[in-house]
Amino acid sequence: MKNYVGIDLGGTNLKLGLVSAEGRILARHSAPTEAARGPEHVLARMAQAVRDVCREAGTDLGDLAIVGAAVPGILNWAEGLVVFSPNLSGWRNIRVRDELQKDLGRPVVLENDANAAAYGEFRCGVGRTVRNMFILTLGTGVGGGIIYDGHMVRGSSDTAAELGHMIVQYGGRPCNCGSRGCLEAYASATACVGRTHEAIDAGGTSALAGKEFTCKDVFVAAAAGDPVARKIVDEIADYLAVGITNMLHVMNPEMAVLTGGMMGAGEPFIERVRQGVGRMAYERAAAACQICWSTLGGDAGIIGAALAAEAFARTGQPA
Amino acid sequence: MKNYVGIDLGGTNLKLGLVSAEGRILARHSAPTEAARGPEHVLARMAQAVRDVCREAGTDLGDLAIVGAAVPGILNWAEGLVVFSPNLSGWRNIRVRDELQKDLGRPVVLENDANAAAYGEFRCGVGRTVRNMFILTLGTGVGGGIIYDGHMVRGSSDTAAELGHMIVQYGGRPCNCGSRGCLEAYASATACVGRTHEAIDAGGTSALAGKEFTCKDVFVAAAAGDPVARKIVDEIADYLAVGITNMLHVMNPEMAVLTGGMMGAGEPFIERVRQGVGRMAYERAAAACQICWSTLGGDAGIIGAALAAEAFARTGQPA
Repeated sequence: MKNYVGIDLGGTNLKLGLVSAEGRILARHSAPTEAARGPEHVLARMAQAVRDVCREAGTDLGDLAIVGAAVPGILNWAEGLVVFSPNLSGWRNIRVRDELQKDLGRPVVLENDANAAAYGEFRCGVGRTVRNMFILTLGTGVGGGIIYDGHMVRGSSDTAAELGHMIVQYGGRPCNCGSRGCLEAYASATACVGRTHEAIDAGGTSALAGKEFTCKDVFVAAAAGDPVARKIVDEIADYLAVGITNMLHVMNPEMAVLTGGMMGAGEPFIERVRQGVGRMAYERAAAACQICWSTLGGDAGIIGAALAAEAFARTGQPA
Repeated sequence: MKNYVGIDLGGTNLKLGLVSAEGRILARHSAPTEAARGPEHVLARMAQAVRDVCREAGTDLGDLAIVGAAVPGILNWAEGLVVFSPNLSGWRNIRVRDELQKDLGRPVVLENDANAAAYGEFRCGVGRTVRNMFILTLGTGVGGGIIYDGHMVRGSSDTAAELGHMIVQYGGRPCNCGSRGCLEAYASATACVGRTHEAIDAGGTSALAGKEFTCKDVFVAAAAGDPVARKIVDEIADYLAVGITNMLHVMNPEMAVLTGGMMGAGEPFIERVRQGVGRMAYERAAAACQICWSTLGGDAGIIGAALAAEAFARTGQPA
């Protein structure tokens, strides 16, 4: 029985797993990305990590059917190229697929990290009973992945599903992408911290005033009743509802999946998101769409990368 | 050689054509919708109009392969039902397909009007060389239709591609749908007139002040240098650019097609739209997408309805 490896490359850590054809993680490995040392170094670390996870699991590298690598950024799928990655400095036109294939002697498929997470949830997570769904990954940025009729939506130049860059407030807050008013500028962990600072600077009363804090701290303070934190967290839910409403009016999916650090906010937060969608979306579109947290959580990218590669090996077509 | 009929039902007029399998209109017919007299009356008029166009073309009703009917509103495709139509009063759960089939004795396929327009442009209009595209129909409202991988995107409950109801300005102008900040609330012909009135009421200098005027009048005044009209028309182009940018970041299409009354604004208007997309969208997504006017214009719905029915008759699958 052949197995698969899924790599989930982040700006800080690279995580990987030896994954069965059913999406079960048989062994795991993680290591710092050391992104500052440049693409060649990171590619060598990725290959070494694949060897390490195989060795730790007692599997021969030659027994791997195929390797799936999920990376943040804009890809050229057919060429196996990372065109550009905002979170990995110096990554422009990096031949990730070919370099890893050469190093490992195994076939490699490259995917965008949020697309891989969507595919993981679709194949064996919360979305395994649906055919049309999307995911929003809430972290430093807001990533997106779309499954339509059982396939990843890549678009005509592999830049589909950049859902964090839907503009929901034209002329609004500056976004890292250079535009303004993107969903990411309101609903990412970074935006959460930034907007909380702004609200405190504008005279808002908060236990967080004068402190360094993270997005998680803001959510904890909100749960404890801190007025500024509460307002910011509520607004994040509302902006997510806007983004989901837009997806309902574009693709009318069966499921919207949220994942990332904000999962800790649990049911009250996602319930506010659902209520926002209920107010803003067409009733028939809202009724068709479950809004729920990811069940694979931080493993979705690993599993999705492995299974996207598995699907390619099995069908000869992109997942 | 069998032919097809495409019906494009509007709130004011119903237009139809006898259409060849290649999308050529062989004969045309139009009549007032008389929507105020209710759904049963309109259905009888639609059936009569099909008979009329056949008679005028010297074609036997029995020689029609199939009839395609494009209607504004939310459908249930599988049931051939108009669930709800904001532009046709009293249309709730109207069995358009079955009633027309019974009346005409020919098979009927029901489609949303903007979806049909997108399909018409895809099959034999400006989009005939692409596989992934969408249309924005700029009229009383803003309609949308999406073609992905050569098929209409209907979504899980036939409410996909309601592109006029993407929220581009959260908390912004009230929209007819009951929500706020929708693209339609900024970029429809109705919004154009409403916003021009507001700008004049707020003290803007305009030759239109104190007059009754249409969207077309605003565009004519803008072309003549009227400052208020110019500003409104520029803002419509900018909001359309926001909507198109969002579609680029969701679906990464090869083509965005604009159609409707604003086509008269020609190249300068669409060039401003392109420039806006160039500023806001990911370079790789913008580079992949042509932004252009429809070539079928007001015939896209007729042709698209006929060819969607043709595709269904040929393949047994929705177009």
